[in-house]
Amino acid sequence: MEPIIEFIKSNHDTYVEELKTFLRFPSISTLQENNEDMKNCAAFVADKLKGAGMSRVEIFATEGHPIVYGEWLGAPGKPTVLIYGHYDVQPVDPIELWNSRPFDPVIKDDKIYARGATDDKGQMYIHIKSVEAYFKVKGSLPLNVKFIIEGEEEIGSEHLGGFIQQHKDLLKCDSVLISDTSLYEAGIPTITYGLRGLAYMEVEIVGPNKDLHSGSFGGAVANPINVLAEIIAKLHDKKGRVTIPNFYDDVLPLTKEEKQNFKALNFSDKKFAKELEVKELTGEANFSTLERLWVRPTLDCNGIIGGFTGKGAKTVIASRASAKISMRLVPNQDPKKIAKSFTKYIKSITPNSVTVKVSDLHGAHPSLSPLTGKAIKAAAVSMQKAFGKKTVFMREGGSIPIVATFQRILKAPSVLMGFGLNSENLHSPNEHFSLTHFQLGIQSSAHFFEEYSK
Amino acid sequence: MEPIIEFIKSNHDTYVEELKTFLRFPSISTLQENNEDMKNCAAFVADKLKGAGMSRVEIFATEGHPIVYGEWLGAPGKPTVLIYGHYDVQPVDPIELWNSRPFDPVIKDDKIYARGATDDKGQMYIHIKSVEAYFKVKGSLPLNVKFIIEGEEEIGSEHLGGFIQQHKDLLKCDSVLISDTSLYEAGIPTITYGLRGLAYMEVEIVGPNKDLHSGSFGGAVANPINVLAEIIAKLHDKKGRVTIPNFYDDVLPLTKEEKQNFKALNFSDKKFAKELEVKELTGEANFSTLERLWVRPTLDCNGIIGGFTGKGAKTVIASRASAKISMRLVPNQDPKKIAKSFTKYIKSITPNSVTVKVSDLHGAHPSLSPLTGKAIKAAAVSMQKAFGKKTVFMREGGSIPIVATFQRILKAPSVLMGFGLNSENLHSPNEHFSLTHFQLGIQSSAHFFEEYSK
Repeated sequence: MEPIIEFIKSNHDTYVEELKTFLRFPSISTLQENNEDMKNCAAFVADKLKGAGMSRVEIFATEGHPIVYGEWLGAPGKPTVLIYGHYDVQPVDPIELWNSRPFDPVIKDDKIYARGATDDKGQMYIHIKSVEAYFKVKGSLPLNVKFIIEGEEEIGSEHLGGFIQQHKDLLKCDSVLISDTSLYEAGIPTITYGLRGLAYMEVEIVGPNKDLHSGSFGGAVANPINVLAEIIAKLHDKKGRVTIPNFYDDVLPLTKEEKQNFKALNFSDKKFAKELEVKELTGEANFSTLERLWVRPTLDCNGIIGGFTGKGAKTVIASRASAKISMRLVPNQDPKKIAKSFTKYIKSITPNSVTVKVSDLHGAHPSLSPLTGKAIKAAAVSMQKAFGKKTVFMREGGSIPIVATFQRILKAPSVLMGFGLNSENLHSPNEHFSLTHFQLGIQSSAHFFEEYSK
Repeated sequence: MEPIIEFIKSNHDTYVEELKTFLRFPSISTLQENNEDMKNCAAFVADKLKGAGMSRVEIFATEGHPIVYGEWLGAPGKPTVLIYGHYDVQPVDPIELWNSRPFDPVIKDDKIYARGATDDKGQMYIHIKSVEAYFKVKGSLPLNVKFIIEGEEEIGSEHLGGFIQQHKDLLKCDSVLISDTSLYEAGIPTITYGLRGLAYMEVEIVGPNKDLHSGSFGGAVANPINVLAEIIAKLHDKKGRVTIPNFYDDVLPLTKEEKQNFKALNFSDKKFAKELEVKELTGEANFSTLERLWVRPTLDCNGIIGGFTGKGAKTVIASRASAKISMRLVPNQDPKKIAKSFTKYIKSITPNSVTVKVSDLHGAHPSLSPLTGKAIKAAAVSMQKAFGKKTVFMREGGSIPIVATFQRILKAPSVLMGFGLNSENLHSPNEHFSLTHFQLGIQSSAHFFEEYSK
């Protein structure tokens, strides 16, 4: 591997220049006015895949944004890895909080600042460069590689599931490699092996048929906001547990090994609380913070609105009030089953003085990759080689729905080898990516091809 | 009284034409662009007071809109009544729901449609016409009359309190007559003798220092919306009573006579629920609907907001959430005292995982006029003579803060002799006023001068 790693090190500046070009495309998937930019950005990715040595590269049109596919299958008998990433980015609002223009990359203190730097252009580009380095130095890869790079991750990957289903054979693989997560800490090689799922609901309470004067009517008619608050309050008990019947039925207990792994991470509650500027943390009793974040299901109100919300006072009893309520799920909870239990319970605790409407807005399956898998082990060794430190294993509280989709349709485990940091402002102003992690990522990826091919 | 009443009857059409002119002024006190209209409208009122026979009429400038004053003190030894009303009106939004232009009065089915028709131009103009009729027929009034007509009622009567304080002697009187409330039912003469007060608060909960991803952080950090909901839920017990310590300490018990009066009104819960399209009513246990509305204090959320409230799903834990919470107060509760108890209690039930800010947005004193007062008795007899039916006595759930102010500064009881109907869309599109009640109002007012002078 020595010459490949040396080649990667010596080409660092070129890689950074190329990444800058990639980051200049304003590939905001949610904005119609950027549709042309999305196409141009997809073409750029396809071009780079070709340049890196892929033998077949194709841009697939979808009803939304195009999907870029690439493959090199010149290692018969060797494993096939499918590399997933996305070239679309989040909107840039609030633009006034950016210190530099979001699509005009700037380097400062070894970090590159631009929308998409860490999520996911910088991380995804790592694998294109490692493939290229391999070809340039060795003339071939030690295993088979496929790329699937989508343009709708930030808007829910609407067309990716159908595409995977339709192209099962094309995408056939032994494992999926994804770099769209974070390191546990800067410089610490990290494999994420579990993700929470999601059941996202909306609850609307309707009381009187119109807004009422709170003087003339207050006290004799149910107030939808008060009722909604009472319903929300009933969803947790005093120990912070969710009260929905059967909610915890399918939750897998934490293994001893995992418990030990989490402890070894030396997570500091104090530091966490300080960063968020809260006096104390809270959550389900008898679990540590990492357990609450990674292996326990939760229920959070994501939004609430009703009545008069302007400045000053208006004495109104609103006709309706509504809340968005989502539950993070853990293996083996099922989003549809949980949504049903939620709906049933909400209806059962709603008083007769109002009517309630519960909507299932969307769901995502949780996922868990066994730590004993071949690909996950190879990834851990590879990162360790590149970073020079022991790889840690973590779970993640968020969801990457596509991981469960790959698992379900392609029957392939995913390896989440992330190089970002939670502090790199993904989805916020001044998004950035560490150029050290960019470099170590390319090395990790190259090591992975070698390790996984053994 | 016969000739006066006949004169009033025979001049009905003239009165309606004059009212139309009055209603054509777009005297919206809250809109700066209508400042000139406000001045013109005040001048119209002053002109009509002069025309009616007042010996002194003056327009007082304030830092806001002008106050119109009028007096005729030619009955020494007789009582003095101060007539209060307002010439300002609410905005007209949503304009598209009006069936005719709001400042272009239209008569349909014996109702006059225009902004301000019932609140309060039509009701206030009644007394100008009764005074005029008296002068035209008899040449003088049987008692002393003062008018105070303000232009800021719809925006909180900001400058009226100070004006009354400054002009205590000018406004000296034996009772205050106000027509700005409603009849219990169409055709039923009604005296309103009690009003609820108000303590209007805002509660803001602040959790983490920025909005967080509900996946990455959910379960380990307090969610301000959930906390706010739990706080609101704790403000009522299972019997619908407010849980704030000492909240009910100063509440006057309902007298037997009042209880009987309310029963005699034959209020229909069923009809009330049907009109509001709710399956069932609710409220404090062991009290009737009218008691809940008129003599019991309440607590209602008037607005709530936090997190993501757009269409669809966003998995965010909001940094902050806030609610407007107001309490309707009854005699002898004190808004300042209640605001303090509220603030103390909210702070005591807020968990350490968040911070809370409680603001006292504004307050109003409740008021109660003894049914045994000379003016109130005269008013009841007068309305009975005009309407030909027995006068009923009711309270009102809403607040008219100025009533408590008159009581406090002038030491004069108020008589609320309203001629509107709750169904006349005050503050809403298609506001209107019954022309029958307008006519019977002028007759009632004329009878009142006679009865009260005895």
